[in-house]
Amino acid sequence: MFRKVLIANRGEIAVRVIRACRELGIHTVAVYSEADKDALHAELADEAICIGPAKASESYLNVQQILSAAIVTNAEAIHPGFGFLSENSRFASMCEELNITFIGPDSETIDAMGNKINARKLMMAADVPVIPGSGGVVRDVEEALALAEEIGYPVMLKAAAGGGGKGIRKVMSQTELPQHFASAQQEAKAAFGNDDMYLEKIIYPARHIEVQILGDAFGNVIHLGERDCSLQRNNQKVMEEAPSLVISQDKRAAIGAAAVRAAKAVNYKNAGTIEFLMDQSGDFYFMEMNTRIQVEHPITEMVTGIDLVKKQLEIAAGEPIGIAQDEVQLTGHAIECRINAENPAFNFAPSPGKIENLFLPSGGLGLRVDSGMYSGYRIPPYYDSMIAKIIVHGETRFEALMKMQRALGELVTEGVITNADFQMDLISHPQVIAGDYDTAFLQEVFLPDWQPEVQ
Amino acid sequence: MFRKVLIANRGEIAVRVIRACRELGIHTVAVYSEADKDALHAELADEAICIGPAKASESYLNVQQILSAAIVTNAEAIHPGFGFLSENSRFASMCEELNITFIGPDSETIDAMGNKINARKLMMAADVPVIPGSGGVVRDVEEALALAEEIGYPVMLKAAAGGGGKGIRKVMSQTELPQHFASAQQEAKAAFGNDDMYLEKIIYPARHIEVQILGDAFGNVIHLGERDCSLQRNNQKVMEEAPSLVISQDKRAAIGAAAVRAAKAVNYKNAGTIEFLMDQSGDFYFMEMNTRIQVEHPITEMVTGIDLVKKQLEIAAGEPIGIAQDEVQLTGHAIECRINAENPAFNFAPSPGKIENLFLPSGGLGLRVDSGMYSGYRIPPYYDSMIAKIIVHGETRFEALMKMQRALGELVTEGVITNADFQMDLISHPQVIAGDYDTAFLQEVFLPDWQPEVQ
Repeated sequence: MFRKVLIANRGEIAVRVIRACRELGIHTVAVYSEADKDALHAELADEAICIGPAKASESYLNVQQILSAAIVTNAEAIHPGFGFLSENSRFASMCEELNITFIGPDSETIDAMGNKINARKLMMAADVPVIPGSGGVVRDVEEALALAEEIGYPVMLKAAAGGGGKGIRKVMSQTELPQHFASAQQEAKAAFGNDDMYLEKIIYPARHIEVQILGDAFGNVIHLGERDCSLQRNNQKVMEEAPSLVISQDKRAAIGAAAVRAAKAVNYKNAGTIEFLMDQSGDFYFMEMNTRIQVEHPITEMVTGIDLVKKQLEIAAGEPIGIAQDEVQLTGHAIECRINAENPAFNFAPSPGKIENLFLPSGGLGLRVDSGMYSGYRIPPYYDSMIAKIIVHGETRFEALMKMQRALGELVTEGVITNADFQMDLISHPQVIAGDYDTAFLQEVFLPDWQPEVQ
Repeated sequence: MFRKVLIANRGEIAVRVIRACRELGIHTVAVYSEADKDALHAELADEAICIGPAKASESYLNVQQILSAAIVTNAEAIHPGFGFLSENSRFASMCEELNITFIGPDSETIDAMGNKINARKLMMAADVPVIPGSGGVVRDVEEALALAEEIGYPVMLKAAAGGGGKGIRKVMSQTELPQHFASAQQEAKAAFGNDDMYLEKIIYPARHIEVQILGDAFGNVIHLGERDCSLQRNNQKVMEEAPSLVISQDKRAAIGAAAVRAAKAVNYKNAGTIEFLMDQSGDFYFMEMNTRIQVEHPITEMVTGIDLVKKQLEIAAGEPIGIAQDEVQLTGHAIECRINAENPAFNFAPSPGKIENLFLPSGGLGLRVDSGMYSGYRIPPYYDSMIAKIIVHGETRFEALMKMQRALGELVTEGVITNADFQMDLISHPQVIAGDYDTAFLQEVFLPDWQPEVQ
């Protein structure tokens, strides 16, 4: 196992990784920006190195500074967390060149899955169902028009190098297509330096079902069941649960096998997630692969009892997964609510500031809060607004929901406005209680009727 | 299920019960003393009623006030927690008379197990091994001397109505016996109004092994495996673990079956614990039964996945246990460390005061902190000094120990001295790591060599 690992991230995921390292007896190096000198991750790590100004491009995305920090502290490996450099294949390959273990898949794997058109082709070859659409790059408007006609409107135009919602357009009809095609291409060029576009059918209504997988250096790949992440606002997941209510035992085996084929097709090592959309008839389609740990990984941990971050470290250190597919057992039901410092009454605008008094729910069986906060901490305005993840595990989904209500009711974040009331109302909605929701529910059904309390 | 439950307790166990009630949709009534108006249990409950001055005898032991509070709030049941009135059969029978459900066994059961001589007789009749000793009351010094000769010194003299270490004497030799007999009798008379004495062999070296049981109104009784509570200081448990390293699968079946026989012999309903001493040859002997929930119940919850406090509520409401013996599965290893506001450098003297800044460890898989504290809370000097229980669960015992080290390292209780460093040193001791300890280890091996850091 590694003696020392550098964590190239901040916030709760950096804290989560540091804690896992400590429990494995690994020394930790935190990196922090000037805005984060009082952050918990910098406090908890054995060593902490400032890597630059608040602006992420000059600190948490500053490859040179982070690699220098790893070299100067003799860190043998770097855990990238999620976001920032976690899916940056250039960073991964620089680590490889410097003989520093990147805790994630090989840079070639990140590349293969990072280009969405390439990923589609690989998946088709691996017999993983993809969303009907263009086989590859759509060269021009004419080709797009012909293809859209064939598939049927509405369709989605997407940038091959896409991410973060950039270069994506929903096209409702033939007349809209030319102008959307041009503007998406322009946006993609500006954002990624690559204006390759492709086209997909819109699966709707749909559930967002993603499958957690683990792969090791010995060619073993297993899946750990699915997460249902259909509750989204602006393509951001809000609440996730595992298992999904719409996945039967047979469907789980089928979608799990597809995820394993997908991972094997790119020689996947470490933890990863295959995201699918599932339509009402139960057909599922590959959307993309996230070649990193995900925000919502804890719900899979709660139902499987497997510590994914420890597995990441062990696999990166050359150990086998050590768990056979038939040893993976799902027990009970887990739910995660993301607590963000944001103001639902002002269109969920970020609400940074000082948490004068923090009380995180705790105690009892099956409650876990992953957070990078403490009482008196000032949340800087430079980064994302997630401040805690409340994760519950119950014997039944009902018990998990009740536990989440209890936990949300206890949360105190004096001084900072959060979305906790919004989450409370969401999990109390009859359709959420019934599990009857799709990817459009939150935005098209819940929000129009919802009255935020002004805090 | 009950609509409303009154919790006749304070501190972490009151908070634990309130949380379980909330997760079951039950309204809660907290009672609090004048010293506890800012306590978390009073804050978290739906209703809170002041029942008297700080002194426990005038508040948390004040049967009249507590029953009045239950009547005035229309509470259908009372959860007594542990300590205070939890094993007071008179209180339980008054509840029964008022048609308020006492969440615990019948008053007759409490009585039967409360008198230690009676309990010994019942256990012998139920084929549960008891510590060799007197069959019943030892009338006088002469009888005691004859019996001690037969059993062999050292022997333990105990008060029939005993508890809290009162009326107990360790007798090393014949010459010591007469004076110890007289003083123990005197102490028992003063403490319990009953000077009946009995005599037992001293089992040494021994492990303190206790078995968690559940019984319901339909005559079902199951056991949930054992806890090893051998790490004690002044007969107070300090750290507990489940399962015990010295209990094989066969031994677990045997001691579990004995515990079930013990519970059935007194028609036991609700959650209870049978405490045994086990000698080096693996023979075990009934010590006593605790007819209530115990401080260390969470480690059993962690390895079985069964919420004991919810089961208490369900069973008291007339539901069956709902779990068959062969459905109880032990997974992984759990450890609990009790965090007390006390100063190890001053012989563990209580150290109440204001917690200026509290940071409880959290996050990751398999960590739980049950506590009644919050940042800025002033710990009153009137009650016991336990402020939190850190509970960890790992796939292996080693993982659990590492997780406990991580958790203890994170704990911050600015303003108040605790035993956290003591616990850290204890779980880092080679013999504790190896699991090689008995009931005397902490006091006779660990403490003499231990240097507390002055805080």
